[in-house]
Amino acid sequence: MVTGTEVLAGRVTDRNGPWVSQQFAELGVETAGIVQVGDRREDLLQALGQVEAWGVDLIVTTGGLGPTADDLTMEVVGDYAGRRLELDPELEGRVWKRVELVRDRFPDIDVESLKLTTRKQSLQPLGAVPLEPIGTAPGSIVRPADGRSGPPVVVLPGPPRELQPMWHAAVATEPLAGLLASAVPFEERMLRLIGLPESDLAATLREAEVGGIDLDRLEVTTCMRSGEIEIVTRFDVEDAPLYARLDEAIRAKYASRLYSDDGASVEEVVRRELVAKGWTVAFAESCTGGLVAAKMIEPAGASDYVRGAVVAYDNAVKVSALGVPAELIEAHGAVSSEVAAAMAVGAAERLGADCAVSVTGIAGPGGGSEEKPVGTVWFGAVVPGHKPFTREIWIPGDRGAVRERAVVGALHVLRTSLQQA
Amino acid sequence: MVTGTEVLAGRVTDRNGPWVSQQFAELGVETAGIVQVGDRREDLLQALGQVEAWGVDLIVTTGGLGPTADDLTMEVVGDYAGRRLELDPELEGRVWKRVELVRDRFPDIDVESLKLTTRKQSLQPLGAVPLEPIGTAPGSIVRPADGRSGPPVVVLPGPPRELQPMWHAAVATEPLAGLLASAVPFEERMLRLIGLPESDLAATLREAEVGGIDLDRLEVTTCMRSGEIEIVTRFDVEDAPLYARLDEAIRAKYASRLYSDDGASVEEVVRRELVAKGWTVAFAESCTGGLVAAKMIEPAGASDYVRGAVVAYDNAVKVSALGVPAELIEAHGAVSSEVAAAMAVGAAERLGADCAVSVTGIAGPGGGSEEKPVGTVWFGAVVPGHKPFTREIWIPGDRGAVRERAVVGALHVLRTSLQQA
Repeated sequence: MVTGTEVLAGRVTDRNGPWVSQQFAELGVETAGIVQVGDRREDLLQALGQVEAWGVDLIVTTGGLGPTADDLTMEVVGDYAGRRLELDPELEGRVWKRVELVRDRFPDIDVESLKLTTRKQSLQPLGAVPLEPIGTAPGSIVRPADGRSGPPVVVLPGPPRELQPMWHAAVATEPLAGLLASAVPFEERMLRLIGLPESDLAATLREAEVGGIDLDRLEVTTCMRSGEIEIVTRFDVEDAPLYARLDEAIRAKYASRLYSDDGASVEEVVRRELVAKGWTVAFAESCTGGLVAAKMIEPAGASDYVRGAVVAYDNAVKVSALGVPAELIEAHGAVSSEVAAAMAVGAAERLGADCAVSVTGIAGPGGGSEEKPVGTVWFGAVVPGHKPFTREIWIPGDRGAVRERAVVGALHVLRTSLQQA
Repeated sequence: MVTGTEVLAGRVTDRNGPWVSQQFAELGVETAGIVQVGDRREDLLQALGQVEAWGVDLIVTTGGLGPTADDLTMEVVGDYAGRRLELDPELEGRVWKRVELVRDRFPDIDVESLKLTTRKQSLQPLGAVPLEPIGTAPGSIVRPADGRSGPPVVVLPGPPRELQPMWHAAVATEPLAGLLASAVPFEERMLRLIGLPESDLAATLREAEVGGIDLDRLEVTTCMRSGEIEIVTRFDVEDAPLYARLDEAIRAKYASRLYSDDGASVEEVVRRELVAKGWTVAFAESCTGGLVAAKMIEPAGASDYVRGAVVAYDNAVKVSALGVPAELIEAHGAVSSEVAAAMAVGAAERLGADCAVSVTGIAGPGGGSEEKPVGTVWFGAVVPGHKPFTREIWIPGDRGAVRERAVVGALHVLRTSLQQA
């Protein structure tokens, strides 16, 4: 149960629901559903009842533990479990220590307001197990009071950087630890493909079923996004031979399109190639505006293989910072094979990298033409010992969609160049 | 109701729930809740019943309209509404036209599989109002059959680039158009502040209440993220004078910290400043890896004021591509006021921009020291007619949190520099 009017109103995208769900999956626990509800007492209470009706063994709530009046989760969970809120003086002492850290960062802060905050956040349902604060808000594990039914509720804070460490503490705490110990992890496999429509895969799955692979025993979900298809299959250990047959059927048909069978994203495959070869990489980006570089710099340790990037949004920057000849842009246009190649070569040279990939495209809504409509994107790649490689794709959709798929496209062009090098 | 095992399992972050919710808010319709549920028939049907129990006037479903066997939404909504699926031959013809566009992009595609896809996606609950496909999947507006209760259901596809245009078509289609015509938009105001803890705001709101501003008549939600606080207040038109008093109380206390009162994000405020002054901007990024530039290039028309960026992840790139003296890095370290200033100056010069902002920080998990712990970030800004301005912040949290807040921090440093210029 994800709480927060700001989430429900679409002003903030919830990251906690998916994250907790992934954690549960790793522990072999299936998520029955996620409900997002606003910060109103009656809505919160009704939602808890509905989640209970899913027949679940456990409820997790996120958010609504802050200092403001619309932070009601602890109180409502207490009501739901039949336990009234009570001040935990020892907890209050520990929360105050956390609050003092905040005070140091805001020297002109009103101390009385901090004391009130501390007091509010140190209220726990009577008999619940508090979870130590990561920020200033403690969480809680709340079992139903005697005579009440319903699953235990794990109450976690909203900010992901507080929720995530607290989750790890919660799963090691009773009664949650005991409850999770009985879960049997199911097998899960993920295949990632690029360059085919979902309908083609649907046909392959139907053929597999006709060929005697009982897909009812394998929970297969397929998902298409940013031009990639992800096939995730969950099954009981005993159905591993059945899955092996499906896996073989998919590999037989899509050998060249399957690029990952261990959950690795394209950026992770690129990272492995670079590390294995001991090469460094640079990026030259136009319409993607730095997103390809940002994606590759996301993991820690990226400094071992990423040199940097030039975001050449303006054509003059393509010339001055990447050394693309102005005549080349004049002759072929900024969105062309020739300019994509020159951008990649320039990025590798100027930033001192072994490899480089470039993106130049028309993200729209303006700038398109009959010959080069909005969504036209050229990629260029250079790797040691090979001539520059370029590729064109056309991406349907709006500016955001073009940018998003262009990032993935650039990484695939770099991946195939590295794998063929 | 957001469907999809991939969403529920946390492999894909749902973007449709928040988007549809925002659209409703603009029309004066409040979202009661959002439920995310997997692609299983019984789960989908139960969730529809639960959403109905919220007492809603309308249900929107997203996803599950694709060609694969786990795409069940149309069928389940038909069951829920008491309407069996039937092939709509005219719709089939129009879907086929859309499918042929896909065929052109995949020349070796199996045509039989496309015909099956077309047929499956042309099934509609008998008597429902089909919504024309944007990709290849039509949507539907499904009213309960005679003798059935429950609200109408609007069935939309999962990919955002299909869902969004179809939404706009749906709201212009009966019975949805008529239903929405009766909604009375409520007033909504948003204030954005930077540089104060949420507890301080909580105290201010309590004082306002004590001072006679009845906050029960104003629905105030506060949300802290990436170091910013967002205060959103919804109220009936008649409570506008009450809101004016709250607005005044907040302005009186936080004059220097309030940077937006019309919903504009910091990047939008920066954009307005640049456009008003006719200046261009460049970025020099280290730990943020291109995200500041990407954020500023997001809106169409960014080419009018964004020149580009250098992502100088490697120190050698700071020297070669930004002209930062190697001795400066040697003497002060890459994460320092001196290097931040030199990066900004270098970016403006090298990329030919009027203004620039730089970010250099320690995102972690490695690289921290006693003196400069993980989370230390320096920003530098240059604007015409002023000496470079630098600022240091310390950001708590993991690598992702540091990067995210550093992006927002850089934009605020640029904003204040522009506003003072």
